[in-house]
Amino acid sequence: MRNYILKDENAVYFESGFSCDNVLFLRLGSEGFFITDPRYSSEAKECVKDDIEVIEARDLHKSAREIIRKSKLNKLFFNPADLTYADFIALNKKLNIELTPKKEFSKQMRIIKTDEEIAILKEAVRLGREGFVTLGEVLKYSANLSEKEIHYKAKECMSFKGEYDLSFDPITAINENAAKPHALPTNKILQKDDLLLIDAGLKYKRYCSDRTVTLSFGDGLDIENREQRFTNPTWQKIYDIVLKAQRNAIENARVGMKASEIDALARSVIEDAGYGKYFVHSTGHGVGLDIHEYPTISAKSDVIIEENMVFTIEPGIYLDGDMGVRIEDMVVMRGGRAEVM
Amino acid sequence: MRNYILKDENAVYFESGFSCDNVLFLRLGSEGFFITDPRYSSEAKECVKDDIEVIEARDLHKSAREIIRKSKLNKLFFNPADLTYADFIALNKKLNIELTPKKEFSKQMRIIKTDEEIAILKEAVRLGREGFVTLGEVLKYSANLSEKEIHYKAKECMSFKGEYDLSFDPITAINENAAKPHALPTNKILQKDDLLLIDAGLKYKRYCSDRTVTLSFGDGLDIENREQRFTNPTWQKIYDIVLKAQRNAIENARVGMKASEIDALARSVIEDAGYGKYFVHSTGHGVGLDIHEYPTISAKSDVIIEENMVFTIEPGIYLDGDMGVRIEDMVVMRGGRAEVM
Repeated sequence: MRNYILKDENAVYFESGFSCDNVLFLRLGSEGFFITDPRYSSEAKECVKDDIEVIEARDLHKSAREIIRKSKLNKLFFNPADLTYADFIALNKKLNIELTPKKEFSKQMRIIKTDEEIAILKEAVRLGREGFVTLGEVLKYSANLSEKEIHYKAKECMSFKGEYDLSFDPITAINENAAKPHALPTNKILQKDDLLLIDAGLKYKRYCSDRTVTLSFGDGLDIENREQRFTNPTWQKIYDIVLKAQRNAIENARVGMKASEIDALARSVIEDAGYGKYFVHSTGHGVGLDIHEYPTISAKSDVIIEENMVFTIEPGIYLDGDMGVRIEDMVVMRGGRAEVM
Repeated sequence: MRNYILKDENAVYFESGFSCDNVLFLRLGSEGFFITDPRYSSEAKECVKDDIEVIEARDLHKSAREIIRKSKLNKLFFNPADLTYADFIALNKKLNIELTPKKEFSKQMRIIKTDEEIAILKEAVRLGREGFVTLGEVLKYSANLSEKEIHYKAKECMSFKGEYDLSFDPITAINENAAKPHALPTNKILQKDDLLLIDAGLKYKRYCSDRTVTLSFGDGLDIENREQRFTNPTWQKIYDIVLKAQRNAIENARVGMKASEIDALARSVIEDAGYGKYFVHSTGHGVGLDIHEYPTISAKSDVIIEENMVFTIEPGIYLDGDMGVRIEDMVVMRGGRAEVM
């Protein structure tokens, strides 16, 4: 597939080494065109890869149409979730070619990471862990914080006070609020013997990190320790099941498996313990320029896992009105196995 | 226009009082439907306005189609820049109605702010000014900062160390880099007698602030003072022209004028001074939930300015390779005149 058009900032960055919020990118065989307006064209010229031509235009769609017409192609692919209806209409004027929808082909092309991408992702993960450690120190020495205040501290620590962008808005949820996989922070106060779930990540050179910890808040907390001790015995039991599920998937994931087999490595542990119906999402997702990439580690995915794929392993159990546990790490497939990043 | 579908988070928030990153909103006459997945449905139910029904769905498009079919409508409007091509295709299955594109109708509906919105916007602007003051203190007592470091400090101060989201990625540009209206920060170091342009804003209760200062960096700087003193006499002259243009527009803008007349109030000052061709953008833009809303204050806009409209006044002069000046405030039309927020 060598003829396509992109608008998504991350997809364009992957092709060209630069991006901005007003760009159309054309890949026509061996040629690449970065079409943008005068606000961004001079930076684009400095930053794009050598084989990409920067086109400065007031009307990006018109400029793209002209290049497409000259190319004498008969088919040009686009991702139907990338272009708006307005983009499609503006591009499809007086073209003698077929604009052909093809779902998420850019993410498909990015499914196996280069060594350079893996090095950047590792640094993102390392910084993310450092952010978690800082957050752990802050939480240990602060009393009576609400979810909203913890959320604010999480943003402060994970962004290194604004130096890095966040991969997503962090989730900071106490007890029953942790039962909602995407909880918004409330005024609920963190108290002794509570459970605290934190899901957060940052971006380094545009690549995302993603990690979840579920913590017992007793006399302080230990954010780096996966062996948490809860005073509530049911919570302890559930935490240990999720941890066992996560470790089983990480230890036994192999190159050559289907993604569904890795999902089953985590899910079977939770199902065998009788909590299968409370694990309401997939085991993981690819991570890269986007926080959600391929492969999807789900029961339905037949994708064969290959060397240099990067994804999360994040099983969870959610008991509505009581509590929720999720434990998440990013792994990279190396030497046939999953290496925690 | 009482029958439409929305996906944009801010447009949906305006209708319903809540939003999330996976929603379709239907307005069918007096009825409103907030269609989202199980991750967000419980929070949506707590937060949406009383007259909105929350529909939990795995397949949002299918759920929307079912509601549309029941309604027996013959026309449903959508913003072609809001829905993707994939959304359009997924919605347009087996519908007996015409999905009708209509550009930016939500922004059009939001062009005049309510008193409640103006109160929130004023607080956003007040916090934004406070962020600028903090940034001014930081810059005054720090030596040899690069644009990138100033950019990092700007993010730190404008977000109150992560408490507030930013309206946009701040612009921090020295001398010739300020000639690019959307400059990306470089390693260039701020030195004595330099010009420093900072364009930044934050979000308060989802509403944006937006402000630009152009500063002389001598023995420190004075971020709150619009009367800047540059050692370079040409720079001083240009700064004073832009300031005069900005003040002329603010002082003489009136309810009942066309937006193009307000643009002319700023542009004529710059044109009369002989720098017309270096003022390469519009005089301003509306601000609200989106950083760029209506009215557009441009030479081409026939929109009649009304009470309770909120927009920026931000003329600039950009001399390629030398320097750039932009001075920006937000105003609200009150009592027939523009009141600086």
